[in-house]
Amino acid sequence: MVDKRFFINNGPFNLAKIAEICDAKLMDETKGNIEVSDINTMLAAGNGEICFFYDKKSKEKAKEIKAAACITNQELADFVDKDVIVLISENPKLSFFKLNYAFYEEYKAEAKVSDKASIHKTAKIGNNCTIGDYAVIGENAELGDNCVIEPNVTIAKGCVIGSNCRIGANAALSYCIIGNGCYIYTGARIGADGFGFNTIQGQHKRIPQLGRVIIGNDVEIGANTCVDRGALDDTVIGNGVRVDNLAQIAHGDKIGDGCIIVAQVGIAGSSTLGKYVVVGGQVGVADHIHIEDFAQIAAQSGIMRNVESGAVVMGTPAVPIKDFMRQASFLQKSIKKS
Amino acid sequence: MVDKRFFINNGPFNLAKIAEICDAKLMDETKGNIEVSDINTMLAAGNGEICFFYDKKSKEKAKEIKAAACITNQELADFVDKDVIVLISENPKLSFFKLNYAFYEEYKAEAKVSDKASIHKTAKIGNNCTIGDYAVIGENAELGDNCVIEPNVTIAKGCVIGSNCRIGANAALSYCIIGNGCYIYTGARIGADGFGFNTIQGQHKRIPQLGRVIIGNDVEIGANTCVDRGALDDTVIGNGVRVDNLAQIAHGDKIGDGCIIVAQVGIAGSSTLGKYVVVGGQVGVADHIHIEDFAQIAAQSGIMRNVESGAVVMGTPAVPIKDFMRQASFLQKSIKKS
Amino acid sequence: MVDKRFFINNGPFNLAKIAEICDAKLMDETKGNIEVSDINTMLAAGNGEICFFYDKKSKEKAKEIKAAACITNQELADFVDKDVIVLISENPKLSFFKLNYAFYEEYKAEAKVSDKASIHKTAKIGNNCTIGDYAVIGENAELGDNCVIEPNVTIAKGCVIGSNCRIGANAALSYCIIGNGCYIYTGARIGADGFGFNTIQGQHKRIPQLGRVIIGNDVEIGANTCVDRGALDDTVIGNGVRVDNLAQIAHGDKIGDGCIIVAQVGIAGSSTLGKYVVVGGQVGVADHIHIEDFAQIAAQSGIMRNVESGAVVMGTPAVPIKDFMRQASFLQKSIKKS
Repeated sequence: MVDKRFFINNGPFNLAKIAEICDAKLMDETKGNIEVSDINTMLAAGNGEICFFYDKKSKEKAKEIKAAACITNQELADFVDKDVIVLISENPKLSFFKLNYAFYEEYKAEAKVSDKASIHKTAKIGNNCTIGDYAVIGENAELGDNCVIEPNVTIAKGCVIGSNCRIGANAALSYCIIGNGCYIYTGARIGADGFGFNTIQGQHKRIPQLGRVIIGNDVEIGANTCVDRGALDDTVIGNGVRVDNLAQIAHGDKIGDGCIIVAQVGIAGSSTLGKYVVVGGQVGVADHIHIEDFAQIAAQSGIMRNVESGAVVMGTPAVPIKDFMRQASFLQKSIKKS
Repeated sequence: MVDKRFFINNGPFNLAKIAEICDAKLMDETKGNIEVSDINTMLAAGNGEICFFYDKKSKEKAKEIKAAACITNQELADFVDKDVIVLISENPKLSFFKLNYAFYEEYKAEAKVSDKASIHKTAKIGNNCTIGDYAVIGENAELGDNCVIEPNVTIAKGCVIGSNCRIGANAALSYCIIGNGCYIYTGARIGADGFGFNTIQGQHKRIPQLGRVIIGNDVEIGANTCVDRGALDDTVIGNGVRVDNLAQIAHGDKIGDGCIIVAQVGIAGSSTLGKYVVVGGQVGVADHIHIEDFAQIAAQSGIMRNVESGAVVMGTPAVPIKDFMRQASFLQKSIKKS
Repeated sequence: MVDKRFFINNGPFNLAKIAEICDAKLMDETKGNIEVSDINTMLAAGNGEICFFYDKKSKEKAKEIKAAACITNQELADFVDKDVIVLISENPKLSFFKLNYAFYEEYKAEAKVSDKASIHKTAKIGNNCTIGDYAVIGENAELGDNCVIEPNVTIAKGCVIGSNCRIGANAALSYCIIGNGCYIYTGARIGADGFGFNTIQGQHKRIPQLGRVIIGNDVEIGANTCVDRGALDDTVIGNGVRVDNLAQIAHGDKIGDGCIIVAQVGIAGSSTLGKYVVVGGQVGVADHIHIEDFAQIAAQSGIMRNVESGAVVMGTPAVPIKDFMRQASFLQKSIKKS
């Protein structure tokens, strides 16, 4: 079912091997030699395919599974049709993840610097890099080893990119220092001028934006997301951060390690997120806000005050999520009464 | 008034011909030979130009019309100044649409594959295609006939694009299969990795995204909009769908035929829209939501539960639109009282 | 502290010169010969650096300043540590702005048209322009003097760009007329088709979009922002307007002089903003709305009705900002009571 046009299938694997890869137990050990050629979704999987079943809400549908084999947990195993070979995992979602990696690896072309790329003579390119057609690498820019720069990317003067990074097609980078193992998606804009100006006699005069964007290791920045550079202070994104598509991270923001920022979030300038903060889709955060470690902000919320460590909030202005739900319920009851 | 720099004017047409094109009736048939050279807006139209008047709210302004001729309906005709030649149409908006097409066609250069494009030797290019400068067409990619690929587009390995498609400048496509007659706007990102990962001991490990983006026929995807590919299941966009700019369609979403998705909408992963659903600007839809056929979601709403067929909802969490308006009114009254 | 990799430092300057640049008064005039080599933030500034202190909220931290010199105002001067040389300015923020400009100018390469750009033979290029690699300038397009077109930009047929403009990397322009001194950021999309169609028997038929985008002088359009062209009427952006990243300005909008539009705002078609309107982040404005001069719309608001001159509103639907805050407080009290 996975499209060979895009992905290379390393299978087939027999079920004994799959049990090993998935840290799972084959219920009927006589079936260890049966081969499975592909992974598929629970209801689409058929002959020779394996699927996963770990969502309790789907238990009614589990009897419709037509896959050769299914990885599930002890609690859900009985819901699976008797003709399906069952493997039991303590964490089927993690097993799914591991089997995916075993079956498929992303297509990776041999490292090659296109002769249609424009690489400034002063740029430093690490070993084993791939640079696509019409990519532009500016003066004094630096790439570590094993980087993949996709076509039509623009990397401006002086940018530093660590090893094992991937820069998606048509992205544009400037004024930034990026760590190792980062993936900047297609169309992301890193290092544009922050939105800062002084209004003097009706004219909005730009404040020089002299800061940089500093990105740690193992960071992903989603498609068409923008990370502006700071006015004087840097914009900093910690290690292991994941930013989804179309988000806005403004000048001087500091995003702590492990934060998750979902699509279309906007964080205004000079705000700070602690570690492992989760920010739901379309949330807005005002400027100069502090959100402490492990806080969770529900989608579409508007954050106008600091948020404490571990808090779970929702709404504009944001309140504890239970209060938000009670507000909604109160409002709906009030109009029914009146 | 339409700028000849950008559009080719096929006029002039005389009013008899215009009546025919517009399915309209010329009130004074002696005027059939009068020529009109251009279309313009109601109040900007002048000598030799024709305008349209179909918005009742503008009736006070209709006497200010200075156009040579005006297409309106029976009900509004009396508001037009007596010096203006009137044509009556049952559907003046549709007439406007038809006359626009008659007067103007978009400038279309002769089909030509730029020698500054990079086309992989294994790519298949249909007949009569235009491929712009610095466009990149990857290994085994396929284009149908009559496609226009604008400059600086990146089409990655294996993508399949049907006939009569247009891919706007600087767009990037990967892992996708696109039908016929589609228009992917400038800067759109199709097929980027879905935002999915497992967090293992504090590290967000990417789940391989093995699905594709499947787009039907006659679909438009707006400027800088992102459509991510699925984790295992495909992301599917049905026939005739219109997506505006800066929207986010996540991994595994299924968008039914004829849906309209306005700018800056975000739909989280694995959600389903039925047919002809209308989603207003900046709406957020949570993951695993089902929105049934013909439902309408007002702008900025947050959809956290399934929406029934034909429902019209608003707010976060969304309620029937009348309830939303009553909630707003209740709130405003409550603070005036207190 | 400012990274020499990206910016050229014009210093050092002695304090007498700095006082002159900043329109400030050196408290101890014997210190006029002391040299300062760089600007830094209040708490990061150290030996040989100057900082600014103008935020009353930071007064507790002012005694931690380790900079050689600090520019502040009369009221705050006493909070600064006695070892720091103090300069007094009536407007320290403006002084900061002026000193930034004196110390740093953006790196500007010598004007050069890349031989890897594709410039149509009919295009007119002004004097002293820089055109980056793989930029595409279409048929009959025109650039004024001193323009900088960054790499991978696409400027379509017939576009007119004034003097002293900068078009950021990977931006795409079509159907537009742009004034002098404008800065279109990386990835911005100017002139795409407005989102307009007629639905005829279940098919969404595109209405020809025959208008243009007209942009005044001294305008900035943020990264990945989209400005669509109009259906017949033009989309018009006045002089001195600032638009942040990822905003959507739809077909036929008229944005008055000096407006400020923050990130991720969406303005639907045919709406009008007067002069100096401020629109906060993630605001949505419905179609055909009029927002009058000097109105201010708080972040995330939804504007469904016209807004009067000078009004300050918030919420969806928007109400005066004080009412919005009282609504929020009323709701929170109501659930505590119940």
